[in-house]
Amino acid sequence: MTQNKHLWCVIMAGGIGSRFWPVSNPDCPKQFIDVMGTGNTMLQMTVERFSRICPKERIVIVTGDAYADRVRELLPDLESWQILAEPLRRNTAPCIAYAASVIAHRDPNATIVVTPSDHAVFRRERFLADIRQAVATVADHDWIITLGALPTRPDTSYGYIQFREPSTSRQKHAGAGEQPDNLFEVVTFTEKPPLEMARNFIASGEFFWNAGIFVWTLPVLRKAYETYLPAIADTFFNLSSDTSREELENVYSHCEAISVDNGIMEHASNVHVLAASFGWSDVETWDSLYEVSRHDRNGNAVLCGNVFTYDTKNTLVVMPNDRTKNVVLEGLDGYIVAASRDTLLVCRRKNEDQLFRFASDVELKKLIDKK
Amino acid sequence: MTQNKHLWCVIMAGGIGSRFWPVSNPDCPKQFIDVMGTGNTMLQMTVERFSRICPKERIVIVTGDAYADRVRELLPDLESWQILAEPLRRNTAPCIAYAASVIAHRDPNATIVVTPSDHAVFRRERFLADIRQAVATVADHDWIITLGALPTRPDTSYGYIQFREPSTSRQKHAGAGEQPDNLFEVVTFTEKPPLEMARNFIASGEFFWNAGIFVWTLPVLRKAYETYLPAIADTFFNLSSDTSREELENVYSHCEAISVDNGIMEHASNVHVLAASFGWSDVETWDSLYEVSRHDRNGNAVLCGNVFTYDTKNTLVVMPNDRTKNVVLEGLDGYIVAASRDTLLVCRRKNEDQLFRFASDVELKKLIDKK
Repeated sequence: MTQNKHLWCVIMAGGIGSRFWPVSNPDCPKQFIDVMGTGNTMLQMTVERFSRICPKERIVIVTGDAYADRVRELLPDLESWQILAEPLRRNTAPCIAYAASVIAHRDPNATIVVTPSDHAVFRRERFLADIRQAVATVADHDWIITLGALPTRPDTSYGYIQFREPSTSRQKHAGAGEQPDNLFEVVTFTEKPPLEMARNFIASGEFFWNAGIFVWTLPVLRKAYETYLPAIADTFFNLSSDTSREELENVYSHCEAISVDNGIMEHASNVHVLAASFGWSDVETWDSLYEVSRHDRNGNAVLCGNVFTYDTKNTLVVMPNDRTKNVVLEGLDGYIVAASRDTLLVCRRKNEDQLFRFASDVELKKLIDKK
Repeated sequence: MTQNKHLWCVIMAGGIGSRFWPVSNPDCPKQFIDVMGTGNTMLQMTVERFSRICPKERIVIVTGDAYADRVRELLPDLESWQILAEPLRRNTAPCIAYAASVIAHRDPNATIVVTPSDHAVFRRERFLADIRQAVATVADHDWIITLGALPTRPDTSYGYIQFREPSTSRQKHAGAGEQPDNLFEVVTFTEKPPLEMARNFIASGEFFWNAGIFVWTLPVLRKAYETYLPAIADTFFNLSSDTSREELENVYSHCEAISVDNGIMEHASNVHVLAASFGWSDVETWDSLYEVSRHDRNGNAVLCGNVFTYDTKNTLVVMPNDRTKNVVLEGLDGYIVAASRDTLLVCRRKNEDQLFRFASDVELKKLIDKK
């Protein structure tokens, strides 16, 4: 398949990694960590994945000021204009608008894939095929395509997309045999529903998880911003190609903090969802990492480290990837054993919702010790 | 109390620390580790304890060649002749003979306290009083005094001393009211008895644990060696005061490897045991360290490290004493959590008898990785 010469990829790498403690933390959020034990950070894996359909010179990373140097180190192939540093965190709508405005100066006919930088994808060939299909589809339709993953549990930390068969368009295309059966119209977007609602979503069979990947052409993107987020559109799409640091700070300090889901996807009528045929996880929790990892016959998932297990089951081990460090575990069942450079965590998997408390206690102690 | 100007202390610091893994290992045996979390190694604590009754210039350390530099670093106050490096490990009888021969050149009227370097002592004032009493006793009697600790469990890793009331000497002294009631004649020495035997020992009420501390004058020591270990006596007590390295290697390579317990104490008739009034543990196992450590209200013993426990009980935590490292434990009951520089261990306390297996597996892996 020939490459689409106008295909661009925007990778959002500004998250602060509050939930994957202690391996991730505000100093080193998840996208900068080799969470999967592959030898590459999540960000590097994301770039690598997309570089198969989008050459690196058309990949743009948006991150926070504090992380820009880290991104440059991890991705030395990228030129400086490809790494955009936001002066303030303003959620995803401004982030995407900023990247789109930079791309617009270089390629007004761009098709843009927007993606998080810290999700896990399995079955890469299918992933690439799905992205190619989405890209081909938006070439023919003024649609916004979002990728949906089949939900497997009523997870309350995910976004849910309600879909329906595209009756009108299907009829329109049916004759031509063009409309594939993995593309659906979007009815609603729901961020982080309560548990009962998530259960109903799953039971109905009408919902996908929102994988956070959007595919749209620049004109469709721009029109969506102009329609639903006119203030952001007005600010960002009028930025010059050599915006000064001061100007950018001014823009961000006056800019609404809103997600692209809330700001656009929930309102736009031209959003379609493509049912992902690949495996996907946002890997936002230790338990989700455990679920997507390879297990040994005792149900242990050992991602990095020289780990020796004895009478140990259903346990996730994530240690710094240093071959001189050894971990011996005896008699654990259903635990997380994880370590960052300065903190070791041993915790039952079912109780990882207490992580925030643990992290607070440790950080508070650090502050007290400093005094 | 005036100091006995002929009192010398021999500290045996040549053990290779095979059981306290991974914190102790042949590279860094227990005597060189801050096991108790006090900020000082066991060896330093032993020197400090004895320096209250025996000035540092009369303390002699016997260690292995491989550890001599470490001892010098830990005890910079000692002069080079005070740190004796054995070229080979030959158990305690040659070790003590070597130190005694060095002391003999400097003080033929020495009284010598021989002690391990890696045991824990609690209630230091009582300890010092017991040692003083033993020293005073051997000034009046041609006895070997060993210190016995009241056994609290049928531990099969200890030596046991069977004692009896000193009927003859008691009668002799009874009139003068001199014989204290904490001194007993020794009937038998038994190293590491089987469990059933250890149980019977405890039940009989006639046994102490052998604390490994011996007090004797140099003439009594020498006579004991000449009587029961004549070859060792002949070799070591004829060493010159400036023995060459080659000579020492020759002596050790031809020398029997035997413990002072087996070689002398089991045979000599003049051995007496002084019932220790202090708390003692050889701290040879994680569980014994747990037993002697201070516990929080949940039964956790946290010896070093910034440790945060949640729903965690009866657990021993020994981490490198680095204030920048944090340990968060959730949902553990009855575990050992211990780390050396390169190895983390999480293991149920009841299963620490598998430590040797763990250590072997880790060391084997290291060897394979090196190839």
